[in-house]
Amino acid sequence: MRSADLVPEKVEAILNPGRMLADGVPYPDYAAARALDDLAGWLPFWADTADRYEDLGDAAIESGNFVSGGEWLWLASLSWHYGQLMWFHEPERREHGQRRKVELYRRAAPFLDAATVRIEIPFESSIIPGYLRLPTGPGPHPCAILIGGLESTKEESYRFEELCHRRGLATFAFDGPGQGEMFFDVKLVADFNRYCSAVIDTLISRAEIDNARLGILGRSLGGYYAMQSAATDPRLKACVSWGGFSDMSDFDGMPPHARAGFVYVSGFDDLDEGRAYLQETFDLGAFIQSLTCPTLLVQGFNDPIFPPHQTELLRAGLAGNPKAEIQVEPDGDHCCHNMGPVVRRQMADWLARQLRG
Amino acid sequence: MRSADLVPEKVEAILNPGRMLADGVPYPDYAAARALDDLAGWLPFWADTADRYEDLGDAAIESGNFVSGGEWLWLASLSWHYGQLMWFHEPERREHGQRRKVELYRRAAPFLDAATVRIEIPFESSIIPGYLRLPTGPGPHPCAILIGGLESTKEESYRFEELCHRRGLATFAFDGPGQGEMFFDVKLVADFNRYCSAVIDTLISRAEIDNARLGILGRSLGGYYAMQSAATDPRLKACVSWGGFSDMSDFDGMPPHARAGFVYVSGFDDLDEGRAYLQETFDLGAFIQSLTCPTLLVQGFNDPIFPPHQTELLRAGLAGNPKAEIQVEPDGDHCCHNMGPVVRRQMADWLARQLRG
Repeated sequence: MRSADLVPEKVEAILNPGRMLADGVPYPDYAAARALDDLAGWLPFWADTADRYEDLGDAAIESGNFVSGGEWLWLASLSWHYGQLMWFHEPERREHGQRRKVELYRRAAPFLDAATVRIEIPFESSIIPGYLRLPTGPGPHPCAILIGGLESTKEESYRFEELCHRRGLATFAFDGPGQGEMFFDVKLVADFNRYCSAVIDTLISRAEIDNARLGILGRSLGGYYAMQSAATDPRLKACVSWGGFSDMSDFDGMPPHARAGFVYVSGFDDLDEGRAYLQETFDLGAFIQSLTCPTLLVQGFNDPIFPPHQTELLRAGLAGNPKAEIQVEPDGDHCCHNMGPVVRRQMADWLARQLRG
Repeated sequence: MRSADLVPEKVEAILNPGRMLADGVPYPDYAAARALDDLAGWLPFWADTADRYEDLGDAAIESGNFVSGGEWLWLASLSWHYGQLMWFHEPERREHGQRRKVELYRRAAPFLDAATVRIEIPFESSIIPGYLRLPTGPGPHPCAILIGGLESTKEESYRFEELCHRRGLATFAFDGPGQGEMFFDVKLVADFNRYCSAVIDTLISRAEIDNARLGILGRSLGGYYAMQSAATDPRLKACVSWGGFSDMSDFDGMPPHARAGFVYVSGFDDLDEGRAYLQETFDLGAFIQSLTCPTLLVQGFNDPIFPPHQTELLRAGLAGNPKAEIQVEPDGDHCCHNMGPVVRRQMADWLARQLRG
């Protein structure tokens, strides 16, 4: 079976209001998308929405309204993001959307409220792209490194970054292998942590950043990467896994679009080959004994992608870490997106406490 | 007929997602409210939601997480706000909700991100309560005075205030006669503008505020007050009416809860008496010739409360003001809440251009 055959059946399958709204999608856009009869209309709807925001953003910048200009270009980027998100069954259209998202955020960056600098980090034969954003006030600042997941990317963490900035943390969100714009060069790999260490090499060279106060937060698949990175790089002093997992033993129970996505970002077409690669690639058991820094896991008990079994694997692995906290929300869905207004602030608070003392 | 008999029939009648979400209600709370079967559950639902945020807020402050503490108390306040909003048919329960809202915002204020100071302005035999919030950077700052409407109050403009702060404007949101906590002392009056001038007297005495750069924005009923105030107090250099009106000639066509609300905040019980009072009280025609400062009107063509007829009255009244701009959104509802992500930024931009140059 080809992963591209795992087409989401209807709009509901990819409509995740808790996530979309908390990440910044305006309610009127979400409501219009929800009202679509047919999944085929999803990508065109978001493309139109993005065009509208892009026009507004360009006009605002043209007339000197830079704050709105930046935010409208960001909303254009976010619209493309949600348009292409689950479009694994039409790779060319997905890639187009991905590139438009990247371009629009890049144009938004100079105008965004927290100072936002694009940094491109050469690493082996590729470039790791990311955005450093700084809180107000004099530095050097403690910094939270933010990692997306299967289809969440550096452009999607804008609102979460604001939570960090308000708490005095700088943020650096980047795309690693298999993610966002890096996907075009490097597919999903087993040693994401090496890319993360390259990011840290760059961050500690910057005067704005306090080298001794670096933390990491990863979301969904990024939760795995965050734990792996914190286990292997002692420069990370705090780690949050936001809806992460330990291995791919529950792969077959995942929703179709999640399976399709994992196989796609790994560079496979055949589902069986992809599954075999993923199950070989992910094994946090090989790292978790070394995860000794303060660590917070936030898991939703009703997560259909990474079920409670994964939480139990993580719990067993962290048994020897007295600084690990495992927060399981009984009513939480994947990443507890249905409880965003609570858990997002809690994670930002936890990071700020660890990094600012 | 008693105004209290105009009970909204079902949840949909008071559910206004564009407004609620843009003003800060978290999506999961909105979705749970929308799913209520019975209007009777509305107020208890929001009371429970408020209690949950209040507990989170208190615990956060207790443990030193002040940013979250302030925002959760604000969300508790906002939950009470939307719980009691349209509850004109049970005045005691509405008043309880109103008082809880006020108390919770007051407790949130010291922890909110933009510096937030409660100011109580003695005026005749009453007190005008408001919150001054400052943008980052050195003052004195230009300032936007923000006025709520029939049931929107100073606690509801928190998110709009952020748009102003990001554009370098201070904000002062207050409750005037008939509004929020002032309702208990003074019901709706014809000379709201005198209260506004008292506010200006206080603001210009403060070192943080640039006396020469004061503007005003009023929402819905507040749009009337803003235009009336800017027409009568030359210290106001810019005026935005966000979904305002000219007179009460269209009263009988308003939705039941709007009619009930107008009569209630005027201190009447009988609908006919209330209508007569309102129709006598509101006549912008008596002021609008003097509204000569830069003025922006934002009107939704599909506004069921203040229909296009009101826009035409305003247009005629402003014919002699070359600095008046009338923006009618063909798809806009009341206050264009269904287009919040666009029009809110546009209004904030416009104010910033007028007041910052």
